[in-house]
Amino acid sequence: MLAEIITIGDEILIGQIVDTNSAWMAQKLNDIGISVKQISSVSDNRDHIMEALQLAAGRSDLILMTGGLGPTKDDITKKTLASYFNVGIHRDEIAFENVKRIFKHYNLPLIDSNISQADVLDNGIVLQNQNGTAPGIWFEQKGKVYISLPGVPFEMMYLMEEEVIPRLKGAFRLPAIVHHTILTAGIGESFLAEQIVDIENALPEHIKLAYLPKLGQVRLRLSGFGVDKEALQEEVKVYGRQLADRVAKYVIVEGDIPIEKAILDLMAARNLTLATAESCTGGYISHLITQHPGCSSVFLGGVISYSDELKQTMLGVQQGTLVQYGAVSEETVREMARGMITNYHSDYSIAVSGTAGPGGGTPEKPVGTVCIAVANRAKVITRKFQFGSRRAQNIERSAAVALTMLFKLVQEDYELV
Amino acid sequence: MLAEIITIGDEILIGQIVDTNSAWMAQKLNDIGISVKQISSVSDNRDHIMEALQLAAGRSDLILMTGGLGPTKDDITKKTLASYFNVGIHRDEIAFENVKRIFKHYNLPLIDSNISQADVLDNGIVLQNQNGTAPGIWFEQKGKVYISLPGVPFEMMYLMEEEVIPRLKGAFRLPAIVHHTILTAGIGESFLAEQIVDIENALPEHIKLAYLPKLGQVRLRLSGFGVDKEALQEEVKVYGRQLADRVAKYVIVEGDIPIEKAILDLMAARNLTLATAESCTGGYISHLITQHPGCSSVFLGGVISYSDELKQTMLGVQQGTLVQYGAVSEETVREMARGMITNYHSDYSIAVSGTAGPGGGTPEKPVGTVCIAVANRAKVITRKFQFGSRRAQNIERSAAVALTMLFKLVQEDYELV
Repeated sequence: MLAEIITIGDEILIGQIVDTNSAWMAQKLNDIGISVKQISSVSDNRDHIMEALQLAAGRSDLILMTGGLGPTKDDITKKTLASYFNVGIHRDEIAFENVKRIFKHYNLPLIDSNISQADVLDNGIVLQNQNGTAPGIWFEQKGKVYISLPGVPFEMMYLMEEEVIPRLKGAFRLPAIVHHTILTAGIGESFLAEQIVDIENALPEHIKLAYLPKLGQVRLRLSGFGVDKEALQEEVKVYGRQLADRVAKYVIVEGDIPIEKAILDLMAARNLTLATAESCTGGYISHLITQHPGCSSVFLGGVISYSDELKQTMLGVQQGTLVQYGAVSEETVREMARGMITNYHSDYSIAVSGTAGPGGGTPEKPVGTVCIAVANRAKVITRKFQFGSRRAQNIERSAAVALTMLFKLVQEDYELV
Repeated sequence: MLAEIITIGDEILIGQIVDTNSAWMAQKLNDIGISVKQISSVSDNRDHIMEALQLAAGRSDLILMTGGLGPTKDDITKKTLASYFNVGIHRDEIAFENVKRIFKHYNLPLIDSNISQADVLDNGIVLQNQNGTAPGIWFEQKGKVYISLPGVPFEMMYLMEEEVIPRLKGAFRLPAIVHHTILTAGIGESFLAEQIVDIENALPEHIKLAYLPKLGQVRLRLSGFGVDKEALQEEVKVYGRQLADRVAKYVIVEGDIPIEKAILDLMAARNLTLATAESCTGGYISHLITQHPGCSSVFLGGVISYSDELKQTMLGVQQGTLVQYGAVSEETVREMARGMITNYHSDYSIAVSGTAGPGGGTPEKPVGTVCIAVANRAKVITRKFQFGSRRAQNIERSAAVALTMLFKLVQEDYELV
């Protein structure tokens, strides 16, 4: 079964917001065996939405829309759908009660534009929204299913999980799609491809391999398509095993998880703890780690020491080290990493200091110079890097490299390679 | 002039990565007066890419593609474009020198798949890529311009800024597009709309108003379309003034910047400093702040205190407070905020402690309970919130609310309201 996602809203097309809804929805659809054929972002314009619906219905069986259901003038999805399907609009009593409940909860008066949030298409199924005022709509026409959802992410997520996914599972006999991902680090895409070319060439038609490179890591993703999910899982697993064995020394983890989650799993299983000292990454490494539920069994906390003074008072970096080598030096990150283990009593630590840019570069240490240390209770490993000129990328790359260094240190300590 | 963006790659359609390229590209195109009509994400499939190209060329004058230029088997953009335009492929000598240079720099051997990175379409203009091995291509056919760029964000960004934007400016007489954004907080979309309905209704045809709600904030965005950029700017500014005056008490800033940037600007102008103490937000607030160049003149640093022990040792929270009220309490965040000002000698501080979930909730303090404090040297303001059950949203909402509280405190202190 093929699906398409249409996101409606000028804010996406002028680049004011990044569309994160589509990726989340695509994952959920894939999980139940529905492939996403295309994702389209279109403007708050009646004719454009109509055209996108027609084209999507020509390619796919299921069309999911997000956005344009708000109470203001630029929200035109509902009216447009009414003309597309040639049906009327009426007020849904349950949705209206929900709108009243929400406004009562926040002690706000109800105005006309809010009341019209409870208006829905005739002949559609109303998907009641407990997390907001705009209900979703499920509409069937000429063998195609159309689903309209609000664009606010957590409202869309609520409706997908509580209404859309269970209804899709009930309404269709869905085929199986199985993905198997292997996260590697320390080898480029083309060298990886060279090492596994024979395995890739021997893959059957219904199993595809993709390379997804990002910041010094490459994800290998096998995708199998079939009928019998269990048999398919076994088959994909066999090819996954072959790939992982072949490039074993570069494998971080088998599974579609980011490297910090692999570290958390590795450390949690061994009752190990971690603390971070961040300068140029400014809390980003810590944010990556603390996105994951249950991280508190491993992650004790961290210090963001932007100023030299705090590197001394909070982390115990020697003034002499800062004067002699500077804040961006392997000597300084060594003392930061050591300071974290002393102050936070952690088993491992990460320390990063660099010039993220665009300002602050010097001839000796241009923008993009980053020093990273990882430590256990006995030793510290430091490295110096020269990344590029972009702040956001320097922060991301520093985090990716620091996490890879930590992963390798723990792996070596526990002889897991 | 209308443009479309086509992103090519299965990884987007299965939801493995979020497409951040399109929003960035759309912003850059808007800046030079090119409107993006549609963004489409399609699979690594020849027929599908061909169809997307045809449809885009039917709607728009400029078609930008990203992705599918890598060295591996699933990268088919170049071959597909060769058949779409019915031209051959040849090796570009300058691109080949660049590939050799990069492999030499990393001390890596050159294999066939890498060499073929230097292959380009006949009759196209090669956009040399200093940040990677895949060059971009600019191709003109039947009055339409097609541009193919690598999908790796910083390579795409390099080529957009150094090659694509300057060439577009040179090749076309572009119309003016002017946006004016007003960031508000503390009032819902529909109430905002009610207060400004007469101004909205009086807007001329060529100026549109959009409402962009997110996490307790609403952005009002005026977009003007015309020929004379300066006259348009003046015109949009007048309507912007009307809107901002009408809802003055909710306005955080006029301009398309996030709240933390508004805080940095406000504080930098007054030589004020800030420090953060984060528990459940785990470094996210600090990450938001340190994304911005020049933040170091305001932001001294922060502590991420996941464990109770560190709340005591690093922040000076009293053990009695933790025992009597718990880590998630207004009493604890009050002491955290105070501790930051004491330890970091900052003028202002933020402290957050909560149960982000999904685990860790209790009947008294269910998942989503978050306490936030903001402080200056004289006083601390604390509030307790009940957000939802989703970890990522709780982290985002906590950060948004904490930043809004801080903004209002600084604003009051300096009598800016």
